[in-house]
Amino acid sequence: MDWDATRPGEVEGPAPMRADAALTFIGRIRTPFATRDDCPRRGAADGPLCRIEVEAPWRPALQGLEGQRWIEVLYWMHLARRDLLVQVPRGRAPLGTFALRSPVRPNPIATSVVEVVAVEADAVLVRGLDCVDGTPLLDLKPARERDRPAPPVA
Amino acid sequence: MDWDATRPGEVEGPAPMRADAALTFIGRIRTPFATRDDCPRRGAADGPLCRIEVEAPWRPALQGLEGQRWIEVLYWMHLARRDLLVQVPRGRAPLGTFALRSPVRPNPIATSVVEVVAVEADAVLVRGLDCVDGTPLLDLKPARERDRPAPPVA
Repeated sequence: MDWDATRPGEVEGPAPMRADAALTFIGRIRTPFATRDDCPRRGAADGPLCRIEVEAPWRPALQGLEGQRWIEVLYWMHLARRDLLVQVPRGRAPLGTFALRSPVRPNPIATSVVEVVAVEADAVLVRGLDCVDGTPLLDLKPARERDRPAPPVA
Repeated sequence: MDWDATRPGEVEGPAPMRADAALTFIGRIRTPFATRDDCPRRGAADGPLCRIEVEAPWRPALQGLEGQRWIEVLYWMHLARRDLLVQVPRGRAPLGTFALRSPVRPNPIATSVVEVVAVEADAVLVRGLDCVDGTPLLDLKPARERDRPAPPVA
């Protein structure tokens, strides 16, 4: 699959030009998915084990994470183009980028809530991620679903 | 309140030094909260109306968002320091940054799921945000709670 092709009906915008803030990659996510073609369309709670490796300077920040059953993982979809305003998902009508969870977006930050399997000194083991092996890690935080309204299943 | 003071028991790490990726601010969030002291501890579904302003180049990406009832808003907590590894929330024991949803973290990206009140040509009106007025917007996407396991209320 050509991940970077623009399909009929899609609308390109400006590639982001301004660097308004800088991200620091704090680790890497190890998954069994070597390429984007290998990745599932979305994660699953019973999916394969994934290892979230945290770089040395940030490991002290894992303290207490073992008390969390569900965490939110933020990562950077480093392979995605960033300039599409309107996209045409396969077999669907065109939709604006903000109406889709496609990796293609101005700031390609993914959010995923996953179950913690184990917390090690330098890594967190989880199930349910769907990203490519080596994806840069941005953040880990406790999932706080209890504070969120429960949307209807659409 | 002195937001940038380090409390006894807190551990400072390196301020992020590497700029591994660049973010582009795609808009601003207007809220009734002029300062951090004015912000509620967390958002509420029946909170005040907030206006998510989207900059001109990205407005075409709103197409189809009016079909979403719940969206996930990602924003940049631009006032937060980024270098604390262990924090001491008021009245609690020290905890690692990744075990907290504090704004203070290496990449201060907030995620919030809120109900859509209206979609305009240049903005989205929602309820339930808790950030300071003028907070930079990073992303909007449909909430996909149905794909997430429902964590227990702890």
